[in-house]
Order: sequence, then C-alpha cells, then structure tokens
Amino acid sequence: MASTKLRTQAAQSPLEERFHATRALTEALAAPLSESDATIQSMEDASPAKWHLAHTTWFWETFLLRDHVPGYRLHDERWPFLFNSYYEAEGDRIGRFSRGMLSRPSVDEVLGWRAHVTQAMGDLLGDPALAPLIELGVAHEQQHQELLLTDIKHALFQNPLGVAMFPAPSPLVGEGRAPSGAQGEGTAAHAAAGAAYPSPNPLPQGERARSWTEHPGGIAAVGHNGEGFAFDCEGPRHRVLLEPFALADSLVTNAAWDAFIADGGYENAALWLSDGWGWVQENAISAPLYWRDEDNGAEHFTLAGWQPRDPDAPVTHISYYEADAFASWAAAQWDKARLPTEFEWEAIARGQHADEAPAHDPAAGNQLDGAGPVQPVGSDGLFGDCWQFTRSAYLPYPRFQPAEGAVGEYNGKFMSGQFVLKGASCATARGHSRASYRNFFYPHQRWQFTGLRLAKDI
Amino acid sequence: MASTKLRTQAAQSPLEERFHATRALTEALAAPLSESDATIQSMEDASPAKWHLAHTTWFWETFLLRDHVPGYRLHDERWPFLFNSYYEAEGDRIGRFSRGMLSRPSVDEVLGWRAHVTQAMGDLLGDPALAPLIELGVAHEQQHQELLLTDIKHALFQNPLGVAMFPAPSPLVGEGRAPSGAQGEGTAAHAAAGAAYPSPNPLPQGERARSWTEHPGGIAAVGHNGEGFAFDCEGPRHRVLLEPFALADSLVTNAAWDAFIADGGYENAALWLSDGWGWVQENAISAPLYWRDEDNGAEHFTLAGWQPRDPDAPVTHISYYEADAFASWAAAQWDKARLPTEFEWEAIARGQHADEAPAHDPAAGNQLDGAGPVQPVGSDGLFGDCWQFTRSAYLPYPRFQPAEGAVGEYNGKFMSGQFVLKGASCATARGHSRASYRNFFYPHQRWQFTGLRLAKDI
Amino acid sequence: MASTKLRTQAAQSPLEERFHATRALTEALAAPLSESDATIQSMEDASPAKWHLAHTTWFWETFLLRDHVPGYRLHDERWPFLFNSYYEAEGDRIGRFSRGMLSRPSVDEVLGWRAHVTQAMGDLLGDPALAPLIELGVAHEQQHQELLLTDIKHALFQNPLGVAMFPAPSPLVGEGRAPSGAQGEGTAAHAAAGAAYPSPNPLPQGERARSWTEHPGGIAAVGHNGEGFAFDCEGPRHRVLLEPFALADSLVTNAAWDAFIADGGYENAALWLSDGWGWVQENAISAPLYWRDEDNGAEHFTLAGWQPRDPDAPVTHISYYEADAFASWAAAQWDKARLPTEFEWEAIARGQHADEAPAHDPAAGNQLDGAGPVQPVGSDGLFGDCWQFTRSAYLPYPRFQPAEGAVGEYNGKFMSGQFVLKGASCATARGHSRASYRNFFYPHQRWQFTGLRLAKDI
Amino acid sequence: MASTKLRTQAAQSPLEERFHATRALTEALAAPLSESDATIQSMEDASPAKWHLAHTTWFWETFLLRDHVPGYRLHDERWPFLFNSYYEAEGDRIGRFSRGMLSRPSVDEVLGWRAHVTQAMGDLLGDPALAPLIELGVAHEQQHQELLLTDIKHALFQNPLGVAMFPAPSPLVGEGRAPSGAQGEGTAAHAAAGAAYPSPNPLPQGERARSWTEHPGGIAAVGHNGEGFAFDCEGPRHRVLLEPFALADSLVTNAAWDAFIADGGYENAALWLSDGWGWVQENAISAPLYWRDEDNGAEHFTLAGWQPRDPDAPVTHISYYEADAFASWAAAQWDKARLPTEFEWEAIARGQHADEAPAHDPAAGNQLDGAGPVQPVGSDGLFGDCWQFTRSAYLPYPRFQPAEGAVGEYNGKFMSGQFVLKGASCATARGHSRASYRNFFYPHQRWQFTGLRLAKDI
Repeated sequence: MASTKLRTQAAQSPLEERFHATRALTEALAAPLSESDATIQSMEDASPAKWHLAHTTWFWETFLLRDHVPGYRLHDERWPFLFNSYYEAEGDRIGRFSRGMLSRPSVDEVLGWRAHVTQAMGDLLGDPALAPLIELGVAHEQQHQELLLTDIKHALFQNPLGVAMFPAPSPLVGEGRAPSGAQGEGTAAHAAAGAAYPSPNPLPQGERARSWTEHPGGIAAVGHNGEGFAFDCEGPRHRVLLEPFALADSLVTNAAWDAFIADGGYENAALWLSDGWGWVQENAISAPLYWRDEDNGAEHFTLAGWQPRDPDAPVTHISYYEADAFASWAAAQWDKARLPTEFEWEAIARGQHADEAPAHDPAAGNQLDGAGPVQPVGSDGLFGDCWQFTRSAYLPYPRFQPAEGAVGEYNGKFMSGQFVLKGASCATARGHSRASYRNFFYPHQRWQFTGLRLAKDI
Repeated sequence: MASTKLRTQAAQSPLEERFHATRALTEALAAPLSESDATIQSMEDASPAKWHLAHTTWFWETFLLRDHVPGYRLHDERWPFLFNSYYEAEGDRIGRFSRGMLSRPSVDEVLGWRAHVTQAMGDLLGDPALAPLIELGVAHEQQHQELLLTDIKHALFQNPLGVAMFPAPSPLVGEGRAPSGAQGEGTAAHAAAGAAYPSPNPLPQGERARSWTEHPGGIAAVGHNGEGFAFDCEGPRHRVLLEPFALADSLVTNAAWDAFIADGGYENAALWLSDGWGWVQENAISAPLYWRDEDNGAEHFTLAGWQPRDPDAPVTHISYYEADAFASWAAAQWDKARLPTEFEWEAIARGQHADEAPAHDPAAGNQLDGAGPVQPVGSDGLFGDCWQFTRSAYLPYPRFQPAEGAVGEYNGKFMSGQFVLKGASCATARGHSRASYRNFFYPHQRWQFTGLRLAKDI
Repeated sequence: MASTKLRTQAAQSPLEERFHATRALTEALAAPLSESDATIQSMEDASPAKWHLAHTTWFWETFLLRDHVPGYRLHDERWPFLFNSYYEAEGDRIGRFSRGMLSRPSVDEVLGWRAHVTQAMGDLLGDPALAPLIELGVAHEQQHQELLLTDIKHALFQNPLGVAMFPAPSPLVGEGRAPSGAQGEGTAAHAAAGAAYPSPNPLPQGERARSWTEHPGGIAAVGHNGEGFAFDCEGPRHRVLLEPFALADSLVTNAAWDAFIADGGYENAALWLSDGWGWVQENAISAPLYWRDEDNGAEHFTLAGWQPRDPDAPVTHISYYEADAFASWAAAQWDKARLPTEFEWEAIARGQHADEAPAHDPAAGNQLDGAGPVQPVGSDGLFGDCWQFTRSAYLPYPRFQPAEGAVGEYNGKFMSGQFVLKGASCATARGHSRASYRNFFYPHQRWQFTGLRLAKDI
Repeated sequence: MASTKLRTQAAQSPLEERFHATRALTEALAAPLSESDATIQSMEDASPAKWHLAHTTWFWETFLLRDHVPGYRLHDERWPFLFNSYYEAEGDRIGRFSRGMLSRPSVDEVLGWRAHVTQAMGDLLGDPALAPLIELGVAHEQQHQELLLTDIKHALFQNPLGVAMFPAPSPLVGEGRAPSGAQGEGTAAHAAAGAAYPSPNPLPQGERARSWTEHPGGIAAVGHNGEGFAFDCEGPRHRVLLEPFALADSLVTNAAWDAFIADGGYENAALWLSDGWGWVQENAISAPLYWRDEDNGAEHFTLAGWQPRDPDAPVTHISYYEADAFASWAAAQWDKARLPTEFEWEAIARGQHADEAPAHDPAAGNQLDGAGPVQPVGSDGLFGDCWQFTRSAYLPYPRFQPAEGAVGEYNGKFMSGQFVLKGASCATARGHSRASYRNFFYPHQRWQFTGLRLAKDI
C-alpha cells in the first residue's frame, strides 16, 4: 500500500516522497488494529497505537503548520493537550499513563486529522528553509513507527488469547534477509553464529578468529559531521581515543542465551550489576521478555502471536542488565568478552581505520520496509535485527548544544541514567539510522527489539 | 429497543420475560459505546463495559448451561479465564486490573456470545427447578447493568474532551420523576428539601417537622422473608430492637452540600472519621467526585457529559467518609442528625410500625427503565436516585449461611470493611431492589450513585 | 517495685493509688530496655517504648496540668509536637512513622519528665471534679502499657539475634494461672480444650456439650451503665435482641491451630473472606505472627525470646481474617461454629440471662500485674490471656455522643473498618477491662495478643 | 584524641599507624552519639552509626582475620549476618532497611568487638603480603567514616528538636581554612567567588578571567598509575582526548544558589533534565537539602545543629539534577558554563598540561582530620569542602577488571545509573582521596557533602 502510493507520486522531490511514504507507512502499520487494539496502553512506558498516529500528526501541525502557515487554524484546539508527549515549552498535557483512557477521538477521527495535516503540509514541503524541520519531522515519525510496533506488541502480549497482529510468514523471514536461496545462507550464518557464541563448551580461539572484526585503536572521529539530517545529540563530531579491540560480527543468538540460562545465568549474583540483580529478584526475571517454554516447546510472543523460537536468530527483548550479565558470563567462557562502547561500535560501522575494513551500510540488513510481523532473523552487517547495547551512558558530546526552541527538548533532557544503543532493529524504518545514531533506554527496559553484540580487548 | 423486544414476547412467562428484557437492556446500555469506549478500564474497582457484557454471559454459561445442559460445549474454552470475576471455585482468572487489556475478543464477538447463550438458555427458562438460579442470574446481570453505567461514567470522565455517552435531556429529568406537571411539584419538593437541609442558617424545628418520618422504636422484623428472590446475605429474617428515631423524607441535596463546603467541611478534621481525614488529606479531596466549578459555573460530569449542577437534586458520588462528615456537620446545625442504621432504614421502608406509616414501593422512584443519561433528580420515596449510606457495617445476619457451591462466593466473602447502602439508585434496574436489599461498598468508594438520607434520635 | 511503692502510700485514696501504681508500672515495663531498644520503631502501627513513656506523660501534662493548674508551664514546649498521638485539636505533630527517629530526648530525660509530671499531679489527684479525667488518664496509660509490650515485642522480633526482654520463667506460667497445684488443673484444662477444638477428627457432640455456655436469647442490656469509669464508646447502655447461642468456655489453642494448618487452612480460599485471602496471598501468610518451625521444633517469639510453643496454650497473634477463616474451617468440622458478636460475648460475661449463669470477674484470669514475660497460658474465665475477636464491627451505639473537647477524639473517630475485641489479654493491666469494654483493630492487624473464642447457634 | 593516640605509637610503620589512627578516628566520630542516636536509620540509603562501627570491623574480621589467621574464631558467629553490607559472595544478610532495627548488639558490645579485632589485627599489620588488603581495609573504613557523618546528619535532621552532634565553632571555621588572618582572605575569596558566579547580573568576561584554570586540550593520561593504593575502578590508567576547556577555581557558593532560586530555578522546566524535573515535582524540591528560611533567617542543618548559612561558603547537599540545572542556568548567564567531565577535572588536578599549571595537593583543603562539626567553608584547591559532580557516568575504564574474590564486589557492580564525583569533602579523611579517585552516587541523592565546580569550553 505505502509503496504503491509512493510510486504514483514520482514527480515529488525526495523529501516530499519520504514525507508521504512515512505518513503512509505509519497508517499501514496501524491498519490491522481494531479500534480498541489501537486505544489500550499496557504500561506507562508504552503508548497506544492511536496515540502514535495522533502525536506524529500533532508534531507536524504544531511545529510546521501552526508555526509556519499564516492563519493556520488547529484542526481541534483541544487535541494538543491530549497528544503533546513531553514538550514542556508546548504547555500542559495529560498524564503519561492516561493515554490509554482516550477512547475518543476515534481512530477514524485521528485518521481524518492525519489526512488533513498531510494535505496541509503540501505547501511547505518545497520550502528549502523548512527542510531541516521537515527532516526532523520525518525522523520523528519514523521513531514512532518503531514505538508503535513495540508498544502494540507489549499490549497484545497482555491478552491471554495470544493475539496476532499480522499473519505469520511461513517460515518467518524478515525482509532484510535474502529470500529463497538465503535459506542455505541462513544455515551458514547459523554455523558462524554458533562459532561466535558457543556454549557451554567454547571452541578454540582460532576457530572463532574470523568472526570478529578487529580495530587497531588510535584516534577516531565520531559523531555526525553535519551532512544530511541527524539529531542534535549525534554531534558535534569529535575525536576519541580508542584502545585496540574487536567487535563480533554477529549478534548473540537465542541458542547462546539458552546456554546462559542453562548455566544458571539468572541465579548467579556474581554476574550481575547490583541494580540488575535487584531488578532480577524483585521482578522474578528468568528469561528475556516474551519467552515461554511450555508443552509446545520454546516459544516467544511476536507480532504474529506465539511462535517457535529460532535458536539461530538473535536474542531480543533483553535489558541492559541482562546484556551486561551475559557479557560477564561470556567473559568467563571466552577471553575478555564485554559490551562495546558506543565509539568502538561507531568506529567499526564507519570503517575508518588502518585495516581499511569497509564501512557498513546503514540501510542494509533486516529493517522496516512495510507493514508485517517484523522479527530478528540474523542478517549480516551492523544495522538491522536488534538495537545493540553499548556500555556507554547517554551523555552529551563535547560542546553539545540542544537545538533552539521546543524541539530542543527532543534529546538533551534525557541525558541521565540511560545507555546508548547502536545500529537499527527490524522495526526501524530503513534509512532512519546511521553510524552516528544514538538510541537510548534505561537499563531495565526491554520492550524494544534490543540485543547485543559482544566486543573484546585485543 | 429493550422494551420493544419485551412486548413482542408476550407469550413468555414473567421469568422468561425478565430474562430476555434484562439481556436486552444490558445490550442497550452498551449500544452507544464505541469499541474502545467499551474496552478501557479506568481503575481497578471498575471494569470495561465489554467485560460486563461478557461476564454476565459467562455467568449464564457457567452456572446454567454448563452445569445443567448435558453435553453443552463452551462457546470458547479460553474465555472463562478472561471473564470470571472472583469465583475462586471456578479457577484462575486474569488480574482484576488487566481487564482493560482485553482488546480481543471484540464487542461484536462478545455480542455473538451473548446471542448464543441467550438463545441456548431458551430450554432452561421453563424449568422450575432452575428458577431460583435463573432469578439469581437476572439479579446478577442487573447489578452489572448498574456497574456498567457507573464504570463507563468513570472511564469517560478521564477523557479531557468531556465525552457524553447519551444526549442530555432538556431539561434533564429522570424517568422516576413525573413529567411536565411535576415541574411544579419539583419546585415544591425543592422547598421541602431546602427545609430539610437548610444552611447555613437552619429553619426552626417546627418548619421541618413534616419532612421526617418517625418511628417509635421497638422490635422490628428485618431481612428477607423467603418469598420471591433475594440474595443470601439478605437473610435470614430476624428481629432487631430499635430505639425511637426519625428518617428524613428526602435526600441531602447539592445545595446542602455546597453549604457544607462553604462552611469549611473539607478542612475541619473534627468532622471526620480518622480514616476519612487521612483519605481527604492524601487525595486532596474537596468536593464530591465529578464536581467542578469553572467559568461555566457549578457543573458535574454525567453520562451526558458536563452539565450544570441542579442545587435541588440529591448530592451523589460521595464516599461513606463524606457522608459521615456531613452528618457530623449537620448534627452541629440540627438536633441529633446522623446516618441511619440499615435496620432503621428497612423499618421505615417496610412501614411496619405502630404509626402505620405505609410501606415504600421498591419499584417506584427514579430507577433504571431503559438506556439514557440516568442522574438523581429528587424523586419521592425511599427507592431511587441514590443508594443511601447507613452506618451499619456489612456483616452476616444471625444464622446466615452462604449458598452452596460457587455462587456461595457471591456475598458472604465480602463481609469485612464495607458499609451497607439501602434503597436503589437511578442506575438500578427497576424491580431489582427491595426493602431487605443490602448493597455494600468500602468507605472510600464513591463512583457509584451514592447519596445520603439523614436520621435522628427522637 | 511498683507494688512496693504502692504499699508505702497507704494513706492515698484508691484513685491516687491507682494513678501512682500505673505510673510506676509503665516505668517498670520499660526498665529492662536499653536506650536503643526503647527508641526504635518497627512499623507504622507500633510506637517506641520511649514514645509510650513520653506520650502518657504528655496526656497528663496536657489535659490535666496545662488545663487545670493555673500558671503551669510545660516541661518543654517543643515536646507536645513530638508526643501528641492523633489529637487534631491539639495541633500538628510528627508523622506517625517518624516516632522511631526520636533519639532525643533520651530515656532519662523522658523519665525526668515523667517524675516531674507525676509529682505535679499531686495537687490534682484529690480534686473530685477532675476524677473522671484522671480515671481516663489512668485507663489511657494502661492501654499504652499493653501497647508498649506488644510494640516492643514486634521490634525485638525484627532482630535476628532473638533478643529476650525478660528472662523466661521455668516453666512459663502467667500470674493469672494458679501456681503449683494448678499444674494438674492445667492438664485437665488441656483435655477440655482438646475436647472443645478437636481435630482433625472431632469428638461426638455429646462429649463437648459441657464446654459451651448456652444463652437462651432474648433481650439483653449491653453497654456501660454509667457506674464507674468507662470509655465513651462503651455507652450508652441499650437493649439488644439475641437469638439463642452458646459461647465456648475456652479459647482456641495452638494445637487446634496446628490442625487448621495441617488441614491446609492457609491454602483453601473457600475458608477466607475475600480481603483476607488477598492479605494471605500478598503477604505469604502461613501461620500466626511470631511462629517458626525449625530444627528446634515448634517455637514462637515471646518477650522472653524464642520459646517452645505450648500446644495447650491459647493461640495468639492472629488477625481477624485468620480468626474468621478458622471459624469457617471449624464450622465444617462442628455444627455451626462461628465467631460471636460483641453482644453475645458481653451477655455471657455479664451473666444476665435466664439460666443464671454467673457473671465473669473482669479482674480474674491471666492479666498484667507486673513486669514480666506475659504470654497466654489457658486461664479460666472470659477475661485474660487474649483479646477475643467478635464479628461485630466497631460502630457507635445508639445515641452515642463523643465526649466534649480533645478527649472526644479518643474513640469515636475510629469507627470505620475495625472489629471489636472483647475480654482482656495477658498484657492488659488487671482492673482495666470490663464486660462493656470494646477493644478494636483492623482485620489484618495481629501484633496484639489476639485470640478467638468460638460461638455457635443453638 | 585520635591524633594523641597516633603520636604515642611512634614505633609503628606508616601503615600500622594509619590502621590505628583510622580505627581510633571512627570511634571518635561516634563518641558524641547516644546509644539510640547510634542505632536509628533514617532512610534506606543511610546506615546507623553503630552499624558503621560494626561493619568496618566485620570487614577486617572477615577478609583479614578469618581468611589469614589460622584458627581464628569469629567474635560472634551471628554477627556477619547483621553487618555484611552487600557482598553476595559472603552470604545472606539482613535487609538494608532493617539495619535500624538492631538495638542489639549495643554500642558497647560493638566497641568491644572493635577492640578485639583491632588488637587481633596486630599480628597481620607487618605482613607485606597483606599490605594491599590492609590498605583496602583502611580506605574502606575511611569511606565509612564519611558515611557515618553524613548518615547521622540525616538521622538527626529528622528530629524536630534540632539536635547538634558537635558544638558549633564560633565562628564556624573548618580545619582546611586558614584561621584568623584568613578572615580577610575569606572576604577576598568571597569577592572572587562573587565574580565567578555573579547573579543575577553577571560581570563582564574580563573580570572573571582570573578565576578559571584553562587547559589546552589534547591527550591526557587518566586513571591510577598503580603506585600506592587505589580502588580497582580507578584504573587502568589510560589516555583520553580532551578538547580545550577551563575549570572554575572555586565552588559554586550559597549566594550563587540563592540567585538561582531567586531567578526561579526550581520552577523552570527548561533548565532541568527530564528525570530531574520529575524528581523536583514529585518531591516538591525547592532548595538544597537541609536548607530552611524562617524567622531566624537563612539557615541550614549541620552537625552542630541549625546554623546560619554563610553566603560565601560552597553550596552543598545538592543532587546531580540540581547541579545540572544550575549549570544550565549559569550557561544562560555566562558563556558556555557546564559541568566538567571526570577527565577534565582529573587533568586539572594532575596539572599535566602544556601551561604547566601545578598539580593540586589531594591532602590539602578542608578535609576530615578529627571529630568535629565538619562543613564546607570555601577552601582553596580542588580537594576538600565538597565532592564535585561531573557529567561523567560511573562506568568501567578500558580493560577494567574487578578484583578477584569477594572484594571484587566493591566497585564494579555499581556501574550503572550513577555519576562520578571528584575531589574530596570536608568529611573525607585527609589522605583518602587522590586525582584518580572516583566517588559515585545516583543523580537524585544529596545527603553527601556534594557541590559543584563549573567548567566551560574555550
């Protein structure tokens, strides 16, 4: 649907195209949902799908139409109070955990608003002076596409009926993974992944050498260089000093996580951060979110309902605490395994080092192209499948200044207590991420498609 | 709708008629709601409208069809887990505050279940052996009709848009209040009510004498006598000894409550029970639930959205703590005002005393006849408008025995910490209540149509 | 010590004597405590021993000395803020759960205040006009003696070291139990108790007939008659109508409770009130407070530290929820066992019925005479050993009016959500209780010496 | 006292001396406390003074005596359960917020244990193989000296009586500040501080130039170099790349904080981190901890009770959120003010840059030398007065490995969610800190002597 619409608008400029494609994709993602699926809110961290449809529209109406179209009248003056997320400069808003109380306006009314705003944006899309703000709006809406998918997954998970939002593919293969022939490659990739994270008995060092990309250390330039769009928190570009290290070529798999569990990973306090151990105890955590092991065997909840877990697929829906504990466990099994820093990850992604390792394509891998039951599958490259925890706290770069105005609240004010994740996930709109991208979450959160890629000192 | 259906089934026996009328009315009450209105849950005490539609169906399917129709197969074997309320003997169920996560099954699916069960019940309705259980089912469903209305009122109240479930009558007049000509009577009733609860300057005693019904005290028989249906907790019938007292002929009005507020009622610790004062402080309570005083004047939230408050209408949506504090305040203004006991109230309702005061008709007054914006209006009699707090704790009567089996969990297990309310409200299905009826809530709860009728020692 | 002091003041009037004996006993009870034992607070419901020493002194200083001695100057003007308990009319005070933060004033300073106030009271003790207030002060301080013991027991229980406040008697025999010769009687009492609450296989009805006291029902006068001191909530005296019933002659024993546990009492939802079952689940309750079963066998924590549990002694430290569940369990084993009402209990205690059963002496039984490791032992009569749960909610009697002034906050404002307990416990100052006495606690509370005596319909 | 003891033991080696001086100082700090002062616990973050006395003794007994003295028998086998803090490898322990329930053992018993362990340590102090562990033990006990002071300050603050642990100096002058003549310097320092943080009208840039120390940027070596004792988290030493910056020569003062408050700092969401603003709202924060402004004027609670606030003294008892908000506010007033990173701070402290700024003496400034009412006074240098927030998260350095064994739990497991503080405070034992020292707390905590020193980009 989204791509059809896209093709019929060939005369549009790229930014116009992306604007319309993004608006259409958001709607396509929500299309399978019932009115009430789209309304419920399962926890304070998550928002209803309808709220995402509305909030992304509020963003355009507020920061573009209201601010830049003379005489523009709000579609409904009461709605900003409902659909502002956290912009203090934009006034009061409903409590975050009251978003699930908004049975009105209806999905149809919100879609009407969407159509109105999308149409009204037409006059502004060609204005070069507004291009940066429109780019921000597209990126903002893409972020909410990912949240829409992870939030509705969490909401549907609450239902004992095991609701599937999308039909299950047969077999479940993401769009970022090559079709048909890839099946054989998938098996090869499995062998490689198995080599990278063998357990409980690790392979000899030599056997695993090929599955790490090494970096000799030294000064690296990180952060966004200002060409093309980036969020303010990705800059300024600056230099960092790296020690020699290596980054794993693949993500930790479900099979490796099974080994961690089988080895008592969730019962061994020595592996855990103190806060992490408290979290495990208090919440009786014993597996990644969405896992269950019942009569049907190893399953996990997906956007296609309960499905068998693929042992070769990357593990996902883990918290930082779990990622860190796994790394501690792995360190005791292999030499020096640990989480990477955000700069190490970025250096490998950029490929800017002496050994001339090629840069990774941020638009490759298993990422979001259209509506469907996205799920990590084990794709190549650093982008796609899962957001990858780093052990870097989400903090300002040297000489960082938040953007001016209300959009300055976008990133800077969240710089405490959170960790940086790099890459992109199966739910990230393809084209959204880049090497300098900094995603961030609190160490206990795990409803996103989070995973981990190990690093080690060399 | 409900009444139409009723009339077309003239051949039915009264119980069959009531069964079908009740089923139809439940559906009529939910009819104005959108799919998402019917799904959301605003607090642990309240349930979604869809859940009420389903739970009342679960009740018939479980205790009638499953238990009494050989070979009956459940409509969906997974649904009892979702729609059992609190019957431990019927197995596990979802957490009470997870009812709002059930976006599936849809309202249509639930209505399909309702139709199926209503139809399947056809064979059992004529079975005399099952009549008591069917009577219980009807009464059960009527209780959920009232909860459906009060719960959805609370849910819609969360929405800043001020959603109206029903159009506002013009003027708002309940079915229990006489039409047209009653307008004049309404004014007269107002004067009487004003006389009963004058404030801040009470009228002389003589002026108010006519507005109390006196009882000389002595031995009274209370509790259900076994004729016709009653809940187990209403019996056994037994004798109690009453001291001479009087019960007010009208409910406390909004105007009287305004006087209580104006006199600092919510700021004067001396008027409050200790727990009540803690509740006021912790929750910053300063008025009944649903009140607001803004530019538009004195308003309250109703099923027809925000509406002006009628000063002459009975105050409603108050907690026991507030009722008790008001009585303490009133006692300082009038001689000996206090809350009645459940037995005093029942004695007046029955009319069984020396002065031969006539019994009150439990089916009179402002009660629920059909779908609409029910609201207290100030009707005559002891039944209708508001449930009335007594100062009797909800406890077992002498020789009380819960019913056998799972339905024995209906009442007896709630006999701690709650207070008895008597009468009926504007949301109580007409015919549901009676003099022995014992409604019960915790002293802090106030999302029901609760009000108060004062008593005094004589 | 206390009694020595008492005897040397032979010239005193009885009220003066009781005043001084009470003051001395409070101090004797706290004497074994270290400075820090006396300072800590283990939960919001409990208060530090030092706080009890101080609060009881604040009471005398405030309501007697300040109000009735012209020119009296407070010992320390800052202390009322610390030691007022809940009298709103007496102004602000520290948060209830901040009492354990008062390392200052020291115990010595508080004892100094006590001595000062006790001495200053000398001039008022002979004033007949103040006698009622002084009686109230004595009763108030006696209540705090009991709380001091139960609160410090709870505090010492928190300490893994198993601190004993008093040396254990050998064997542990309360003062209310006859010495030496009583040992044989004790065994006899045991047999009787065993007959009263046999389990799991109850004895035939005939065998147990003698262990119940029957009452033919009818009109009984209850409540205090105004002669001698009583709390305001014990009156007015009024008539109630009783159905025929019987009250057990002994309290439920530890052995009976063991049978309840062995029969799955704590795992059977059907036995419990709904709130009680929630309490059991949430707090993982599986035995009375202070019980443990370890290598040493069946023990419980006492004021003499961890001690073996006597199977024949009355069970204590149970909540209303537990008492009610036990009664439900017992009802399934014996005919009609249940908790008594407060009026049934009082009627038996008074002995005012047709069969001329003698009244029970409120000053008999195992009650508090001096400092020591009080503990229920199985004494005769209705008073002593344990406070006994009734199924009566703590509510106002007909025509009840709270006392005037600040002392009017003593009882009336607690009349919601609590249950009445009758009798007296091993920690109740002998002479403090009477047939009309109404103790009250919330249904989940169990740190008092609470127990139960069954009743049944006849 | 401590120093007297120190001098009489001239024959000891430096490590022995420091061991004994440290043991003696801990006891001297607790000496003014009553038994109950030393027992109470005011919040989960804080521990009773007695617990600190005991825990530091447990540390020596466990990791030195038990592990290294053949046949050593624990002083009391039950006490490790009470006084282990968080070492999972050392077994279970009481809940953290139950430390305040330990009225036993008494202070005297704990002091007896201390004497026993101190004496028993005699044989081990000269063993070179144990020197690193003994150094760790000394450093550990010094940390608890600081916690003892900050924890008891918080506990005494709960008492409305305004308890003073130490007599107030007259005037209050810390040992790190020069006496008498310094009074004039103090005024000069005040002027300088006023210049550094003027408000609300900042001085011209030129006027403030002298009050910043500049650093040209480049590669700097940070972390401990392995000579002498350091905690594991201070290493390994490694290189970092710095951009040019400047660090303020003085700490932000109370006067500057007053200006921040006067300018609406606590009411302006734009200045705050999102989590910080939530913390301000939820806790109604409007000033640093321990501040009050009453009839007596501007006061704060100190170890000498309530005292006037010195406007020229460094502000203390602020959270990271407050420090960050102040920096945002200051940035709007001066060019580029912000918090420093831990590496910038360390680089200035080391003095290893092109401009040859001298290193700062970690043992200078206002630090803890003996028992007394420590308080920030505005001393020179980077060490002393207050711990200084950096905007660096507390994370592992490259190639960091926790120490082996139970002491490996000392630092590494806390590396999530906390921020690094540098320097030393008035409550830090002189000699304890160094340039590489990394203190760490959660961003909401502020019961330590925390302050801030601004940095800026140049």
